[in-house]
Amino acid sequence: MERASFEQEKNGIVYKLPIGFRFQPTDEELLVHYLKRKVFSQPLPVSVIPDLDVFHLNPWDLPGCLRDKRYFFCKKKMNFMSKCSSNFSTGCGHWKGSNKEKQILGNNLVIGIRKSYVFHQAKKNSGGLKSEWVLQEFCIVGSISTPYLNQKIMVQVGDWVACRVYQRKTKSRNGVKSNKTEDLGVSLPQIGSCSSGLTEIMCNDLDQEVISPQVK
Amino acid sequence: MERASFEQEKNGIVYKLPIGFRFQPTDEELLVHYLKRKVFSQPLPVSVIPDLDVFHLNPWDLPGCLRDKRYFFCKKKMNFMSKCSSNFSTGCGHWKGSNKEKQILGNNLVIGIRKSYVFHQAKKNSGGLKSEWVLQEFCIVGSISTPYLNQKIMVQVGDWVACRVYQRKTKSRNGVKSNKTEDLGVSLPQIGSCSSGLTEIMCNDLDQEVISPQVK
Repeated sequence: MERASFEQEKNGIVYKLPIGFRFQPTDEELLVHYLKRKVFSQPLPVSVIPDLDVFHLNPWDLPGCLRDKRYFFCKKKMNFMSKCSSNFSTGCGHWKGSNKEKQILGNNLVIGIRKSYVFHQAKKNSGGLKSEWVLQEFCIVGSISTPYLNQKIMVQVGDWVACRVYQRKTKSRNGVKSNKTEDLGVSLPQIGSCSSGLTEIMCNDLDQEVISPQVK
Repeated sequence: MERASFEQEKNGIVYKLPIGFRFQPTDEELLVHYLKRKVFSQPLPVSVIPDLDVFHLNPWDLPGCLRDKRYFFCKKKMNFMSKCSSNFSTGCGHWKGSNKEKQILGNNLVIGIRKSYVFHQAKKNSGGLKSEWVLQEFCIVGSISTPYLNQKIMVQVGDWVACRVYQRKTKSRNGVKSNKTEDLGVSLPQIGSCSSGLTEIMCNDLDQEVISPQVK
């Protein structure tokens, strides 16, 4: 029975998750179990993160439910350890990078770097209107040490970064949290998986036991 | 094959979700698909929410991973529409209720009420030390109208409430978000499902297609 189940997964079955379940990995899970495997061409636990050039797309044009945190792989060299912020133009604005980076730890070692970008909507005669859309970029890092250097230098490993895109919740005056999708003139699409539908996950990774039954 | 799969679910199979997937329902999903069904004794999408008297337990003693948002059903009449805040003692402190409530909408109708509590750790000669632990209590509501009243009165439907327990993230001076579990003298347990393990969900609800395969 279990064998037959995995055979079906190999043939491209879509499994549906019960309502309320979401792909919400921690930073460490995203790096260790998804991005690292992507970089080293190893099979992923599940094919839930699409490849996409997110830096040149408006946040509301990215696939998935706008209310959820969405994840993407993107082929890109991360511009970390740089004092300059970086900008990437999209159709309706640009992603503006901050200078701050966060080190992501795994077993008390630095395994990756996280850098944040905020989407600025294009506006005439100004640098753009800061929005609530955030893009967090993750890369895997290693350190280089040579006899000529007194300190280790961190470098990105591989060509892929992982991205988490979401809308910050803002507190209004009465303390109620809200998001500002409507402020950008974007109406949220009625996607089934957003609130009342089921989350679909693709099981293409042949060597993984994606949803493995275990009898109590 | 699909039929056989459901047969296995009926026999109490534990399905394991891939890494990074979590039970993170929206307020509306929690009310419509879980609490409402609990109140009306209908089968749940999946048995993922345990019954527990959370109001008389310390937050770190509740089952599940302390880093995740945890969900419980609790048999209790919610004290909403009251100007008085409510307190519930635990072994090491108390849950202190706020006076604010949030109406939860479904299809533009008020379907429930959310009330928040903050855990205060017991401290000698004081009202307790406010912690970062939050308990959000949800109940299903209906409205009563009689010829003697000019307005409709909201009332709780059923004896069950749903609870979401989590730690607020606080921003330190350098802007880095952290949680304060360690400040309470609580060391986080190394539970597999927290970061590196798999999430287990129980499929006891016989009439539901919990994880239903669909061929592309």
